[in-house]
Amino acid sequence: MSGWEADPAVVALGGGHGLYATLTAIRRLTRRITAVVTVADDGGSSGRLRGELGMLPPGDLRMALAALAEDADGVWTTTVQHRFGGTGALAGHSVGNLILAGLTDVLGDPVAALDEVGRLLRITGRVLPMSPIPLDIEAEVSGLESDPRIGRCVRGQVAVATTPGKVRRVRLIPSDPPAGPEATAAIAHADVVVLGPGSWFTSVIPHVLVPGLRESLVHTRARKVLVLNLAAEPGETAGFSAERHLHVLSQHAPDFAVDDVLVDSASVPEGRQREHVARAAEQLRARVTFCDVAEPGTDRHHPGKLAAALDQLIRQPRPQLAGLRVEGQHTGSAVRSGSVGKERVSWR
Amino acid sequence: MSGWEADPAVVALGGGHGLYATLTAIRRLTRRITAVVTVADDGGSSGRLRGELGMLPPGDLRMALAALAEDADGVWTTTVQHRFGGTGALAGHSVGNLILAGLTDVLGDPVAALDEVGRLLRITGRVLPMSPIPLDIEAEVSGLESDPRIGRCVRGQVAVATTPGKVRRVRLIPSDPPAGPEATAAIAHADVVVLGPGSWFTSVIPHVLVPGLRESLVHTRARKVLVLNLAAEPGETAGFSAERHLHVLSQHAPDFAVDDVLVDSASVPEGRQREHVARAAEQLRARVTFCDVAEPGTDRHHPGKLAAALDQLIRQPRPQLAGLRVEGQHTGSAVRSGSVGKERVSWR
Repeated sequence: MSGWEADPAVVALGGGHGLYATLTAIRRLTRRITAVVTVADDGGSSGRLRGELGMLPPGDLRMALAALAEDADGVWTTTVQHRFGGTGALAGHSVGNLILAGLTDVLGDPVAALDEVGRLLRITGRVLPMSPIPLDIEAEVSGLESDPRIGRCVRGQVAVATTPGKVRRVRLIPSDPPAGPEATAAIAHADVVVLGPGSWFTSVIPHVLVPGLRESLVHTRARKVLVLNLAAEPGETAGFSAERHLHVLSQHAPDFAVDDVLVDSASVPEGRQREHVARAAEQLRARVTFCDVAEPGTDRHHPGKLAAALDQLIRQPRPQLAGLRVEGQHTGSAVRSGSVGKERVSWR
Repeated sequence: MSGWEADPAVVALGGGHGLYATLTAIRRLTRRITAVVTVADDGGSSGRLRGELGMLPPGDLRMALAALAEDADGVWTTTVQHRFGGTGALAGHSVGNLILAGLTDVLGDPVAALDEVGRLLRITGRVLPMSPIPLDIEAEVSGLESDPRIGRCVRGQVAVATTPGKVRRVRLIPSDPPAGPEATAAIAHADVVVLGPGSWFTSVIPHVLVPGLRESLVHTRARKVLVLNLAAEPGETAGFSAERHLHVLSQHAPDFAVDDVLVDSASVPEGRQREHVARAAEQLRARVTFCDVAEPGTDRHHPGKLAAALDQLIRQPRPQLAGLRVEGQHTGSAVRSGSVGKERVSWR
C-alpha cells in the first residue's frame, strides 16, 4: 500500500470507449481522478467541428466527462451524449460537442470549457486534453501495395483506424506538440497512472508521443499500470498479438516504463503465450498480471471487474522488476506452466 | 393597489427584443414572472432548427430565458446567447438554440426543456411557449400590386416582417392552434398581464389569435397592460400611427380588452394626436397613460423607466372606463389639450 490516503490520485490516459471504461472503473475506487484525453480525432461530429471551428476535437473529451458524471442517466448527461438525428446540417452532432464548442468560443480556453461542463454534470474529478492544440496522426502502413515491403503514409485518425494495411508506426503532426500543463502537473502528482485500454495507435500510443507528457510519465513517482485491450481491433491492430501491442508501444517510446501490465486472463491462453507477453513486458520493465476483467460476451472491459483488479493491483507492493515474472490474481490464474488452458483466445 | 402581496404574479406576452425589454423591466418589480412567447419564427437559426428538427422555433424562447437569467454576464448566459461564426454548417446558430433542441429531443417536451435551461441560468420566473406546436403566420398585404386595392397573401414571419407592402391582417396556420396549458394557467392566475411591445403583427397580435390564450386573456381578473412600441417598424408596420396599432389589435380580437395602454410620451406629441390614441384605446376599453419610457436616442424601451412606469401604473386603482380618458404620469404629462408639444414624434 502506497502513501496515499483514502482516495488515491489517479490519472487515466486514453480516448474513446476504452477510456470511458477505465474511468467508469476508477471512479469506484477514488474521487481524485484526472482523465487525460487524446485530441487527434478527425472523424464524425468531432472532425466536423474541428474543421469548421478550429477547436480541439471534443468527442473523446465529452465521453470522458460523461463517464465521470454524477448521474449517468441524468437529463444533462443524456443530453450531452445525445446526437441529433435526421439528414440535416446537425445530423450526427452530439449536443455535448456543440456545448463544448460554444463554451470554448466564449471562454477562449478548452480547459475552462471542460471544467464548466464538468460542473454541469457534477463530475468526479477532471477531464483534460493531452495537448491544448488539435493534433493529427500519421501512420506508416505496409500491405497496401502488392510489394509488402513498401510502406505508405496514411494520415488522419479515421484513416489510420480503418486502413486495411498493417500499421507499423505512428507519429503526431505537429511532431512536437505542447502538453497540457494541467495534464503534466496531474501526472507529476499522481499516485497511480493508468494507460489504456483503447485504440492502440490512435488513443494509447499518442500519449507517449507528446514530449511533455512522456517526460512527465517517465519522471512521475506514480504507480504506472498499462491495461491491455481484450482483443485486436479490425483495421488498426488486426492480427496483433498481446505481446505485439507491448512491442509497438516500446518502439514508440523506448524510455517509457510501467510497473504493471494488466491483461484479461481469457484473452491470452495459459502457457507459452503468456510467457511471450511477460517477455514483451520486460521491455517496459513491467510485471504482467492476468485477471478476468471482461464484460462477458464482449471485447470490452467490465467496469466492476476492472475496478477490482486495479484496486488489488495498486494495493500490492510495487513490483521490483527482476527478470521474468508472470502473476495471476484472484479471478485470474497464476501461470508459469506451458500448458494452454481452455480460456477464450482473442489474440492470435 | 390590488390584492397581491409583495410580489405580484406578472405574465408578459410577446417575442423578440420587445419581450426581452419587458422582462428586463418586470424582473425589477417581482420574482413571479411568466413569459409567454410566440412560436412562429421561421428565420435564422430558429427557422433552420424548426425546419431540420420539427421543433418549436427556439430563438424568442431563448431570448426570454436570457432576459430572466440571474447573471446576464455569466458564462452560461453568455454561452446560451453566443452564435457560432464562420461560414460552415453551424454559422449563425446560437448555442442556446442547440441546447434547447437537444433537451427537447431528450425530454420530449419543450416546456421541460425550457425549465431545464431556466435552472441552468437560474432564471427568475418561467418561460413558456404560447403554443406547444410551431406556428406559421400568414398576412394579407396590400400595395404589392400596381392596383393598391389588390391584396396578396404573404406567408412566414420573416416575409411578413419585411414585406414592402402594407400588412392588413394576419392569421395563424393552423388557424386554431392549442394554447400551452401552462400559459393559460399562468394568465388565469396572474395579477398583471403585460402585452407588447414588439413586432406588432408577428410578436404581439399572434397571442390573441390563439383561441385558448385569447380566452384566458378575456377571462382573467388580472390587470391588463398593453405597452405600445416607441416607433413604427420598417416593413411590418411602416407608416403606422400609434392609434393604428390599437385599431389593428382590436380588429384581430374584437372581444379583447385591456385596462391600460402605456405609451411613450415622446412618441406621440401632446394634443390632437394623443386624443386620437385615447379614442383608439376605447375600442380596447383602456385608459391611456403617457410616460417617458424610452432609452434615449433609440426606439427601445429603457428597462428602468419601463419598470417604474409599470410599477406606478399597476399600483393605481384599476381604471373604471367611462368614456375618453387620457392621463399623464410622473415623467409624462397629462394631456387633454389640443396643443401639440415639442416632443419627438415617431408616429406619423
